[in-house]
Amino acid sequence: MGLPILSVSRRLRRTPFTDQIVESGVKSYTVYNRMLLPTSFESVEDDYHHLKRDVQIWDVSCERQIEIIGPDAATLVQRLTPRNLATMKIGQCRYIPVVDETGGMINDPVLLKLADDRFWISIADSDLIFWIKGLAQGSQYNAKIFEPDVHPLAIQGPKSDELAARIFGPEITQLGFFKFAPYKWREQTLYVGRSGYSRQGGFEIYLQGFSNGAQLFNDLMEAGADLNVRAGCPNLIERIEGGLLSYGNDMTSENSPFECGLGKFCNLDIVTNCFGFDGLREEFINGPQQQIRSLSIDGPALMPCTDVWSLYVRDELAGHITSAAWSPDFDTNVALGMVHKKYWDAGTVLTAKTPDGERQALIMQGSFADQ
Amino acid sequence: MGLPILSVSRRLRRTPFTDQIVESGVKSYTVYNRMLLPTSFESVEDDYHHLKRDVQIWDVSCERQIEIIGPDAATLVQRLTPRNLATMKIGQCRYIPVVDETGGMINDPVLLKLADDRFWISIADSDLIFWIKGLAQGSQYNAKIFEPDVHPLAIQGPKSDELAARIFGPEITQLGFFKFAPYKWREQTLYVGRSGYSRQGGFEIYLQGFSNGAQLFNDLMEAGADLNVRAGCPNLIERIEGGLLSYGNDMTSENSPFECGLGKFCNLDIVTNCFGFDGLREEFINGPQQQIRSLSIDGPALMPCTDVWSLYVRDELAGHITSAAWSPDFDTNVALGMVHKKYWDAGTVLTAKTPDGERQALIMQGSFADQ
Repeated sequence: MGLPILSVSRRLRRTPFTDQIVESGVKSYTVYNRMLLPTSFESVEDDYHHLKRDVQIWDVSCERQIEIIGPDAATLVQRLTPRNLATMKIGQCRYIPVVDETGGMINDPVLLKLADDRFWISIADSDLIFWIKGLAQGSQYNAKIFEPDVHPLAIQGPKSDELAARIFGPEITQLGFFKFAPYKWREQTLYVGRSGYSRQGGFEIYLQGFSNGAQLFNDLMEAGADLNVRAGCPNLIERIEGGLLSYGNDMTSENSPFECGLGKFCNLDIVTNCFGFDGLREEFINGPQQQIRSLSIDGPALMPCTDVWSLYVRDELAGHITSAAWSPDFDTNVALGMVHKKYWDAGTVLTAKTPDGERQALIMQGSFADQ
Repeated sequence: MGLPILSVSRRLRRTPFTDQIVESGVKSYTVYNRMLLPTSFESVEDDYHHLKRDVQIWDVSCERQIEIIGPDAATLVQRLTPRNLATMKIGQCRYIPVVDETGGMINDPVLLKLADDRFWISIADSDLIFWIKGLAQGSQYNAKIFEPDVHPLAIQGPKSDELAARIFGPEITQLGFFKFAPYKWREQTLYVGRSGYSRQGGFEIYLQGFSNGAQLFNDLMEAGADLNVRAGCPNLIERIEGGLLSYGNDMTSENSPFECGLGKFCNLDIVTNCFGFDGLREEFINGPQQQIRSLSIDGPALMPCTDVWSLYVRDELAGHITSAAWSPDFDTNVALGMVHKKYWDAGTVLTAKTPDGERQALIMQGSFADQ
């Protein structure tokens, strides 16, 4: 499709950091939850090397927050997901599959427990808030559900601890993975979690107050100047190497959590009253017929994957590739795809029908980053 | 922001017509319901003149369909909207406001009644399906709710009747406004409605079967060659002139239907059990404090409106502009905006703070197309 131009309007919402992102030289965007999400600055490949070496500031405001607060908040949140939340403590983050009544994935957000009766859900690309509001309205739960004035900004890369310590104090380096806590920044107290959509380590800052965005972004860029900090964004190559799934790309509402490799988060022996339970039951017992796998596709760099690419074994459809990119570090095309049970074992070689012709695709054991 | 590049991935879904749209020379896109929606071919201004003079084929697949079918379908559909549907007949379309529990607009779709127990909802840019599924699940309605394999393609422009007759037969020219009926096309029967997102007249074809897209598009382009048919898209200038609202641009979940000028579709004296009734009651009685207006902004052509522009009377905030474009036919900047009650009377002059400086903005009586 060449390089399509994006027409910007109010509907594609700006973020608290959009002006800084533009000044930082953003080259391209995608649209995520009707918000602008940068996809490259120098180039996807240059950004990739920098992310793995230094530290980046990411405008991930498009991970919109849903706040659920009230007497029935905890009950409602548990009904939203097959993952058992009974042991979840205040200050913890949990990755939770959320399914509709058929058991199909409608989002794969991160849940934050702020209080026994107060939660934030940091969402992937779909209007999960309507599902929650609809359920709450229909079931008459006593909870307020809304999008708070909260906008995540991520620090990602190996120098993240050093940079975060300069802004929030050295104690932040003691924060455990998928934990969050309040930290002082200027006159505010902000929640910061050790999390993020890369495998390079880092934090997500939950900025409160849209108008504070420029100050926070600039403070981080100034504090990190000698660390070679740059504006960045989720990196296509790095996230495929890391096996990080993208809702809408690697899975849709057609897929169950079991197909997405999220069976470990489906505690259906304990959580028997979650919405979608009936839709999940059969795969909980018998397992899925297909599942996401990391694959290595041979030959030179492929065109971007803008649609699924079929996978074959001789004339038999074996699955499809959903994301792919050339990896400089692994010297191959790294990919994610949904593969039928018969062919999903590591070491199996399939034929991928790509826009650049037929290629051999090898099923990996785990993700590339796990090798 | 210059001309931002859009990074395309599977998450930004292709449509049945994407290949034809690319071949037709699409210049730019927006993203609508996570689908690619063209925004210009020659240029917005050239497309505008052509739309008003000839006939265009629009890929509006992004108006995703929600099918609701089953014993409780009619009850559920009525509970979704404050508009009274008691008199709605099979074969009719209705524009329906849909609000959340606070009375805030969450979509402004077109409802089609296919049978007493079967409806399609042709949605604006939000995942309305989750709200409906959540309500149905929570309230235990007996209805199946899903996205069918249906993809709207519009014929718009003054020569639409001529073109539609060549494909579907002359009887289609007898179809009334906001009515739909089944028509034969090749071996299929397709629903076609007299509707569309312009004021130039035309039809929306509800293509069934993704893989039939190329054939339908090509048939229309061939049949209309001597009518100067072109691939087109919703036109920013023409829709503002026509006062056609854009969900996400001119209204958000912060706005009530009354603020959007949709009070005539809020029959709360009859429809007393719709979801969101309590949130709408106060404005049903007292009216809104602000409302959408068409405005004329003086001076030369303005930059695109990528965010709201404040409207003032002296130092007092009077509202904000949400959409704007230079209109060649009206020789002014045409705009839509939300204006406070105190200042919303036709003839009032406000000051608009635009990126091109302060401009005078005149409140119109009705839309430009109504002049």
